[in-house]
Amino acid sequence: MTSDPFFHPVSGFELPRFAGVPTFMRLPHLTPEHDRFGEVEIGIVGVPWDSGTTNRPGPRHGPRQLRDASTMIRAEHPVTGMRPFEALACADLGDVGPNPADILDSMERISAYYGQLMRNGTRPLTAGGDHLTSLPVLRALARDTTLGMVHFDSHTDLYHSYFGGTMYTHGTPFRRAVEEGLLDPKRVVQIGIRGTMYDREDRDFAEAEGIRLIPIEEFHARGPEDVMAEAREIVGDAPTYISYDIDFVDPTFAPGTGTPEVGGPNSYQALQVVRGLQGLNIAGADLVEVSPPFDASGGTAFLGVSIMFELLCVMAQQTG
Amino acid sequence: MTSDPFFHPVSGFELPRFAGVPTFMRLPHLTPEHDRFGEVEIGIVGVPWDSGTTNRPGPRHGPRQLRDASTMIRAEHPVTGMRPFEALACADLGDVGPNPADILDSMERISAYYGQLMRNGTRPLTAGGDHLTSLPVLRALARDTTLGMVHFDSHTDLYHSYFGGTMYTHGTPFRRAVEEGLLDPKRVVQIGIRGTMYDREDRDFAEAEGIRLIPIEEFHARGPEDVMAEAREIVGDAPTYISYDIDFVDPTFAPGTGTPEVGGPNSYQALQVVRGLQGLNIAGADLVEVSPPFDASGGTAFLGVSIMFELLCVMAQQTG
Amino acid sequence: MTSDPFFHPVSGFELPRFAGVPTFMRLPHLTPEHDRFGEVEIGIVGVPWDSGTTNRPGPRHGPRQLRDASTMIRAEHPVTGMRPFEALACADLGDVGPNPADILDSMERISAYYGQLMRNGTRPLTAGGDHLTSLPVLRALARDTTLGMVHFDSHTDLYHSYFGGTMYTHGTPFRRAVEEGLLDPKRVVQIGIRGTMYDREDRDFAEAEGIRLIPIEEFHARGPEDVMAEAREIVGDAPTYISYDIDFVDPTFAPGTGTPEVGGPNSYQALQVVRGLQGLNIAGADLVEVSPPFDASGGTAFLGVSIMFELLCVMAQQTG
Amino acid sequence: MTSDPFFHPVSGFELPRFAGVPTFMRLPHLTPEHDRFGEVEIGIVGVPWDSGTTNRPGPRHGPRQLRDASTMIRAEHPVTGMRPFEALACADLGDVGPNPADILDSMERISAYYGQLMRNGTRPLTAGGDHLTSLPVLRALARDTTLGMVHFDSHTDLYHSYFGGTMYTHGTPFRRAVEEGLLDPKRVVQIGIRGTMYDREDRDFAEAEGIRLIPIEEFHARGPEDVMAEAREIVGDAPTYISYDIDFVDPTFAPGTGTPEVGGPNSYQALQVVRGLQGLNIAGADLVEVSPPFDASGGTAFLGVSIMFELLCVMAQQTG
Amino acid sequence: MTSDPFFHPVSGFELPRFAGVPTFMRLPHLTPEHDRFGEVEIGIVGVPWDSGTTNRPGPRHGPRQLRDASTMIRAEHPVTGMRPFEALACADLGDVGPNPADILDSMERISAYYGQLMRNGTRPLTAGGDHLTSLPVLRALARDTTLGMVHFDSHTDLYHSYFGGTMYTHGTPFRRAVEEGLLDPKRVVQIGIRGTMYDREDRDFAEAEGIRLIPIEEFHARGPEDVMAEAREIVGDAPTYISYDIDFVDPTFAPGTGTPEVGGPNSYQALQVVRGLQGLNIAGADLVEVSPPFDASGGTAFLGVSIMFELLCVMAQQTG
Amino acid sequence: MTSDPFFHPVSGFELPRFAGVPTFMRLPHLTPEHDRFGEVEIGIVGVPWDSGTTNRPGPRHGPRQLRDASTMIRAEHPVTGMRPFEALACADLGDVGPNPADILDSMERISAYYGQLMRNGTRPLTAGGDHLTSLPVLRALARDTTLGMVHFDSHTDLYHSYFGGTMYTHGTPFRRAVEEGLLDPKRVVQIGIRGTMYDREDRDFAEAEGIRLIPIEEFHARGPEDVMAEAREIVGDAPTYISYDIDFVDPTFAPGTGTPEVGGPNSYQALQVVRGLQGLNIAGADLVEVSPPFDASGGTAFLGVSIMFELLCVMAQQTG
Repeated sequence: MTSDPFFHPVSGFELPRFAGVPTFMRLPHLTPEHDRFGEVEIGIVGVPWDSGTTNRPGPRHGPRQLRDASTMIRAEHPVTGMRPFEALACADLGDVGPNPADILDSMERISAYYGQLMRNGTRPLTAGGDHLTSLPVLRALARDTTLGMVHFDSHTDLYHSYFGGTMYTHGTPFRRAVEEGLLDPKRVVQIGIRGTMYDREDRDFAEAEGIRLIPIEEFHARGPEDVMAEAREIVGDAPTYISYDIDFVDPTFAPGTGTPEVGGPNSYQALQVVRGLQGLNIAGADLVEVSPPFDASGGTAFLGVSIMFELLCVMAQQTG
Repeated sequence: MTSDPFFHPVSGFELPRFAGVPTFMRLPHLTPEHDRFGEVEIGIVGVPWDSGTTNRPGPRHGPRQLRDASTMIRAEHPVTGMRPFEALACADLGDVGPNPADILDSMERISAYYGQLMRNGTRPLTAGGDHLTSLPVLRALARDTTLGMVHFDSHTDLYHSYFGGTMYTHGTPFRRAVEEGLLDPKRVVQIGIRGTMYDREDRDFAEAEGIRLIPIEEFHARGPEDVMAEAREIVGDAPTYISYDIDFVDPTFAPGTGTPEVGGPNSYQALQVVRGLQGLNIAGADLVEVSPPFDASGGTAFLGVSIMFELLCVMAQQTG
Repeated sequence: MTSDPFFHPVSGFELPRFAGVPTFMRLPHLTPEHDRFGEVEIGIVGVPWDSGTTNRPGPRHGPRQLRDASTMIRAEHPVTGMRPFEALACADLGDVGPNPADILDSMERISAYYGQLMRNGTRPLTAGGDHLTSLPVLRALARDTTLGMVHFDSHTDLYHSYFGGTMYTHGTPFRRAVEEGLLDPKRVVQIGIRGTMYDREDRDFAEAEGIRLIPIEEFHARGPEDVMAEAREIVGDAPTYISYDIDFVDPTFAPGTGTPEVGGPNSYQALQVVRGLQGLNIAGADLVEVSPPFDASGGTAFLGVSIMFELLCVMAQQTG
Repeated sequence: MTSDPFFHPVSGFELPRFAGVPTFMRLPHLTPEHDRFGEVEIGIVGVPWDSGTTNRPGPRHGPRQLRDASTMIRAEHPVTGMRPFEALACADLGDVGPNPADILDSMERISAYYGQLMRNGTRPLTAGGDHLTSLPVLRALARDTTLGMVHFDSHTDLYHSYFGGTMYTHGTPFRRAVEEGLLDPKRVVQIGIRGTMYDREDRDFAEAEGIRLIPIEEFHARGPEDVMAEAREIVGDAPTYISYDIDFVDPTFAPGTGTPEVGGPNSYQALQVVRGLQGLNIAGADLVEVSPPFDASGGTAFLGVSIMFELLCVMAQQTG
Repeated sequence: MTSDPFFHPVSGFELPRFAGVPTFMRLPHLTPEHDRFGEVEIGIVGVPWDSGTTNRPGPRHGPRQLRDASTMIRAEHPVTGMRPFEALACADLGDVGPNPADILDSMERISAYYGQLMRNGTRPLTAGGDHLTSLPVLRALARDTTLGMVHFDSHTDLYHSYFGGTMYTHGTPFRRAVEEGLLDPKRVVQIGIRGTMYDREDRDFAEAEGIRLIPIEEFHARGPEDVMAEAREIVGDAPTYISYDIDFVDPTFAPGTGTPEVGGPNSYQALQVVRGLQGLNIAGADLVEVSPPFDASGGTAFLGVSIMFELLCVMAQQTG
Repeated sequence: MTSDPFFHPVSGFELPRFAGVPTFMRLPHLTPEHDRFGEVEIGIVGVPWDSGTTNRPGPRHGPRQLRDASTMIRAEHPVTGMRPFEALACADLGDVGPNPADILDSMERISAYYGQLMRNGTRPLTAGGDHLTSLPVLRALARDTTLGMVHFDSHTDLYHSYFGGTMYTHGTPFRRAVEEGLLDPKRVVQIGIRGTMYDREDRDFAEAEGIRLIPIEEFHARGPEDVMAEAREIVGDAPTYISYDIDFVDPTFAPGTGTPEVGGPNSYQALQVVRGLQGLNIAGADLVEVSPPFDASGGTAFLGVSIMFELLCVMAQQTG
C-alpha cells in the first residue's frame, strides 16, 4: 500500500494528457541508480527489441508508442474500483537496451536486467518487443522455480527452429523455455490459437508435453468466461507468468503487429480475458508484438496499454 | 409529408455519388435568408467547433467530412422502409460559425442560431463539434421545457470542472445542463460508459441526481434490445433529446475521435440502439466528436452519417 | 492428388515470407504457354479491372495487393487439416489483361480466357476486380449448364441499369446473368444484404424470380451456421458458383472497398460462412471488390486471401 | 468589374476556413437554373471523371477534394495585388455529371455543358478529372476558332491509341484535338516532358506537326522565366487554352496523381510558370489529374487550388 | 563549458535511438524542483498549446512528437564542429502545462514559467505550440529590455484581430508584442512571407512601424546568404529573439502544420537560414506550429528538431 | 545485344501497368535452374534483409515494393535514347533468401549467391536490403580484383563498430570492405554526407585511408555536374562498384528509409548524379535502404526504381 504521492501518476485534471515527457501511465521514471528504486513493487519495463522476428519487424518501436498511448490511462479500474497506483509502488523503469545486431548479446542483457529486478523484489510488467523477449525474461524469473503460464496468442510459439536450424526466433521461445525447465508444461495454457499452419510439429510437441491448446473456434464457442475458468484451474495457485501477444486480438482491432491472423477476439474480449486472471499468483507479465510501423495511428498501442492496465490491476491484488 | 422534389436529395442513379458540391445527404442547402427556409421541418446543422476539447482536438473538421461521407446515403431505410426525405421537409442548413478562440462567444452564437430554428418550427439534427456543443443547443431547445435525454457515450460528461476550475469543456456539458434545469436528471439515461476513471465524482453526481448509468459491461451482458427498452421507459413520452457521442462505439469501428475507450459496441449495435428509439418524442438530436484528423480514411464519418440517417428516420416518424 | 513438389508453395521456413516474387500463395506462376499448364486443377486468376465501378474505383489494383498478402498463407487448414496444395494441382495463372478504357472489349477478353480454362478442365478461383467481373466469368462457366450461386454481399447487384440506361456496371451483373440464363434464380441465395436503398426495384426482381435474399438483420439473428444450412439446401448438389464481395464483411474489418455498408459480419464470421460451403459442387469462385487505394495497410487484402484460402479448401474437397 | 458582394467569397475573418459547405474558393454555387447564372464571367467547373485513365484511377474524386482545399484561398494575390473576385464575376458552377461506365456518353455530356457556357459568355476554369477531360472541353471551346495551347505536363498525351486501338484515353486527348482541328499545333507548347518512354511515336507526331516540346532537362537548365517567354511567343495574341496536368510538378510535391514521373519542378516553379502566362488571351484553363486516393492528406489538392488561383488571376486580367 | 557528463545526451552507440523515455535530444529531464535545475544554461521547453489556432488545430501535440524525433540528433554539428552539449549545460525542462479551454489562463501560466527561467539565468529554446505561444514567452523575456526579432514564417502574424474583435490568436502575437513594447519594430525582420492575402492591413502596420518584410519572391531571387546578411544587420548586436514557424518551410517538406502556403524554401535552406544567425545575441528562440495530426510520419518533426539543433548551436556560441 | 523478345519487358500498351505478377521492370523471372539463366548479362537481384539496421528496420520489405513500383518503368531513356533491355539480356533473378535471425549465415548466403553470378558472367544490379548488403556482395565481386566505388549516401558507413564491439551493422560495411581489401580507398568517393555526428572517428579513418568525402554543403555549392566530374576522375577506368543509399536523397523525396538526414538533393539531382556515371567500368551496383513501412505510398520505391533504371542504362553502355 502506497499513499506516497511520489508514486502517483500525474492527473489529467492538472496536466493535460498530451503534455509532459511520456512515461508509462505517467508514473515516475526511475533507473536503478535512483535512491527510491529499491521501493518499487511493480516495475513497468520496456524491451525495444525485435531481432527474433521472422516476418515483419517493428516491435523495437513498441515501448515508445505504448508510453505515448499510456498517458490516456487514468487512476481507477471502472469495474473493480481497483486503484493500482495506490495499492502498490509502481514505476516506469525505462528500457532495457538491447543490441539490435546481436541476438545472444541482447538476451544476456535482458536476463541480467531482470535478474536485478528479482533481487530487488520488483515484479515486472514488460512492454515488448517481439515474443522472443519472453525467453530471457523467463530465464531470470524462473531461476529458482518453474513457472506456469497463461499465454494469449494466435500462435503457439513452440516451433523447434527456423531457416534450417536457427533456435532463437519469436516462433520458438516457449519451446526453449520448456526445454530449459523454466515452464512446467502441465501448467501452461495457450488461448486463441488460429491461422493457417506450416505443419503439426508445434502441436505434436504441445500434446507430448501436456500443454493445453485452446483454438479460437473453441474460444468463440465457449466464451471468455468459461475458457478463463479452465485456465485458472490449469495454472492453479503456484507462481504463474502471463504472456500476452497482441496478435491474440483480431488484427482489425490490433493491426499494428507483424504476424496477424484474422478471426480473433474483439477488444472487449481482449480485456475480459485479463479480468479472468483475478486471484492468480502472478510472477510477472508481458504484452508483446506491438509494432508501430504497422499502425501509426496508435490504436493498437492504446489497446495494448488498456490491456497492460488490466494486467497491472490483477497483479496489484496480490498484496496484503 | 413532402412530395415536393425541391426537398429531395440528388439520386446516385443520376449524378454519381462522388460528384457535386457535398451537402448533408445531398439535400438542398438553405440558409435563413432563403425563401423556403420557413418550410424546413428537420434541419441538419453543422457545428464545426472543438474548443471544449481537453485532449486531442479535431471535431471542428467534423461537419465537412460528414457532409462528404453523407453523399453515400440513399433514400430508403432497409428495414423499416421509411423514406425520410419524402416524409418531412429536410435540408442542410449549413454550419453555425463559431469563434475558435473564444468559448463564451461561440456558445452564444450557437444558442442564438438554434433559438432561430425553434422559432421557425425546425427540429435540429446536429453534426458536431465536440460534446460541449450539446450545451448551447440544449439552452435553445429547453428554453420552455425541461427535456429528457438518451445519451450514448463512453463517458458521462458530468464532471464539475477541469484544470483548476474551468467550467466549460467537453467533459462537463451535462453537469451544466442539469444545473441549469435544461435536463430532468430523472429522465436521463447514459449508455455505454466505460474506460479508466479519474475518480467517482461524476458518478456520485449521477447517483445523487437520479441519472441512470448503464456501463458497457451491462450493455454487453443484456444486449441492445433489452437496454433500449429500459431507456425508452426512462424518458417516456415527454420531449427528449438524443445525444450520440461517436466514442460510444468501439474505437476500432470509429477511430476518428479524441478520447477513445476500448471495448465498446460494434457498428451493427451502433445502429441497433438508434432503431430502439422508435416512438420517442424527439426534440432534437446530435452526433458529436467525429474528429477527421484521426481518421483521414473517412470510415468514422461514414459510420457517423449512417447513424445520423437512423436518427433522421426515428425523428421523421413523429409526423402525421 | 498431387504429391508433385512442382505444385507446392515455397515454405516460410525456407524463404522468409517477405522474400521472393509474390505469386498467389507462393504457388508456381504458369501461363497457358507453360508445358505443365494442362495439369492445373485449380487455377488462381487475377482480373485487375474496375470499369464497372459506379462510385470509388480501385479494384483494378486488387490482384497485386492480394498476391502480396497471400505470401502469409501456409499449407494447412487449422480446423479441417486440409492441405489443398497436396490435394490438387494448384497454380497462379497470372492476370487476364483487361482494356481499362473499353468495357465490352474487356468482357470479351475475360470470357475468352475463362473459356480456355474450361476446355483445360481447370476450375477457377478468381481475385477481382469489381463485381462486374463475375459476369464474363459466368458466361464462360455456364456455357453448358445453368449454375446455382451462393452470393455474399451487402448489395444485391441486381439493378436493371444506371445513369439512364447503362447496362454493365458492378451493380447489375447478376441481373444480366439471370436474364442470360447463366444462373438459375431458384438456386441463388444472397447473404448479408444491407444499407440504405435507392428503391425496391432490385428486390422486386429478386422476389419475382425466386432469388432468396437474407438481409443482415436475419443473418445476425440466426447466426452463420443456420444461415449456411439453408444456403446449402437452396443450391443443392448441382454445380454452383460462389461469389464473395469483400463488402459483405463489415467495413471496419475490410475498409479497402468502394461501396461499404456498416453493420456487417466480423472477420471470424467472414471465414465461418465459407466453411459452411463444405460439400457443395463448386464450379468456380471469386473474391471481388478489394480496393487497395482505400486500404494501403493491406489488412483488407490479408482478410481477402484468408477467405480465398477457405474457398480453396472447400473447392479442393471435390476430388477422389 | 464586380463590386457586387453576391459574387464575393466568404471571408475567413468571419466564418472560419474549416466551416461551411465547401464551394470552390468559397464562391457562390450557381447552377444554370439560377437567375444570376447569366452574369458569371469566369465559371469554376468540376469534372469528376477518370474513365480515360490507363493506370491508377482516382481523379473522379478530384473536384471534391479541390473544393475542400480551396477554402484556404484568400482574396488577393500576394505579388500582383490582383483581387480576382472583385475584377470579374466568378462562381462555382458545380460539377458536370459524367457517366462513369460510358466514355462516349460522358464526353457528350461534357461538351454539351461547356457549349452552354460558351453561349453564356462564361470562360471556364476546370477542375478535373483525368486528362481526357480536356478533349470534350476543347470541342466546345474551339467550335468556332482553332486554339493555341500552353500545356504543362510530364507526358505529351499525344499517343495514337492504347491496348490495341482504343482511341480515347488520358494519353491521347491532344492527338485527337489536333486531328479534329481544335488546336493549331504550331501554337502548342508542351513544358516539362520527362520520364521513361514506350517509344518515340508521340514525339514523331509532335515534330511532324510542329508542336514545341520542352523537356524537363531544358526547363531546369533555362529556368521558368526564359521558358515562359518562349511559350508566350509561341502562342501569341490569339485565343489560347491552358492545360495544367498536376503531374507536371514533381511527385514529391504532388503525390496525388496517377502517372507520376520523378525529377520535376518544385512548388514555387509550379506557380512561377502560371505567372508567366500574364498577358495572354486565355479562352479557358484546366487543372487535371489530381487523384485524392493517392494523397489523402490533401497536400496535392492544396497545391492544385493554389495553381488554380494563379490561373484565375491571369484570366481575370483580360477585362476592362 | 560543461564537461559534466550529467548534462550529456545518451549516445546512440550505447542505447539504440529507438530506446528509452524520449526527452529532447536525449538530455536529462529536469523540473524546477531538481537540485541541478539552477545550473541549466539553455533549457528546452515544450509548450503543448494551440488555443490560438484559427484553422486546423494540432500543435498541442507538437512537443511530444518533437521529443520522439529528437532522439535521432547526435552530438556534433557537421559543418562547424560545435558540440553544444559540451559547450553549455543543456536540459529538457519538460512542458509548461496550459489550460486547453482558457486562453488567458494559459498565457499567464506560460509567462510565469518563463519568468522563472529568466530569474534562473536559463535561456529558453521553446518547442511549440502554435504561434500565439511566442507572446507570453516574450512577455517574460522582454520584461526588462525591448528585443529585436528574426522571424521565419509564411505569414506576418501582425493582424489586429479575428472573428469580430478577438485579440489573441496565432495570427496576432507580434501585433500585440509591438503594441506592448516587447519588440522594437525597427529591429524586426520577417522572412519568407507568401500566400494569398485577406487584405493589406498587416502589411500597412508593418510599413508604418518599420518592420522589414522579405517576401518569398525576394528570398528565392537573392538566396539565403544575402537575405541573412541583411537580417543580421537589422537586428544588430542587441538582444534578439528568434521565432521560427515551421510553415516558413515549403509544406511538402513540412506538411505537419495548420496553415500551409506552397512555394517556400526547401529543407536545406531551412537549415541555412539558421546558420546565418551566427554571431547574434540570442535571448531565446522558438520553433512553433508543428502539428502532428497532419504528419503522423514524423518527417515534419524531424525537420523541426534538425532546425532546433541548429538554433541550439548558434545559441551555444554565446559563451566564454 | 539482344533482340530476343524473351528478354523484353511486357509493354504497358498491351498489359496495363497494374496487371500481372510484378517482376523487376516486367522482365522475365529466371532462377539459376532456368535453362536460359546462363545468357543473363545483367541480373536484377533482390536482397530482402535488414539485420544490420541499428535504428528503424524495414528494408527487408524493399525488394517487393520496388518490384511493384518498377512496373511503371518503360523501355527507353528520355535523354540518351538508350533502350537497355534491347542492349543487353536483362532479367529478374528473384531474391536471395536471407536468414532474418542470423547475420553471419545471411552474409554467407549472399556471398555464395553472388559468387554464382560472377561465374555466370552476370553483372548484378541489387535492390536492398539495408546497407550491410553491400559487404557480402563486394566479397563476391572483389574476389579477384580490388574495386573502386562511387558511393551516394548521407552517411559514410565507415564506423568501426556499434554497441560495444558489434562489427557488422549498416554503419560499418565499407570499413570492413577497406580492411578486407575489397575496396581501394584511393578510388572511393562518398557524396552527399551530412547530418549530426557522433564524433569524427569515421572521418578520421577516411582521411587516413585517402577516401574522398564530399559533404552536402560542397555538393550544393558546386552542383551535380562538377561533383560527378571529380568522381569519375577518382575512380578512373578500372572496375568500379556503385552503391546508392536512398537516404542520399532528401527525406522529403525519399521518406521510406530508416536513418533520414534533412537537407539533401532533390529528385532531379538524384537522377543527374547517375547520369554522371556514364563511361565508367561498372562491375555492379546497388540501391539500398528503401524501407516500405515508412512510406506505404510507394513514392520512395518509385524514385528508387527510377534510379535503378538510370543505373541500368549506364551499366548497359559497357557492351560492344
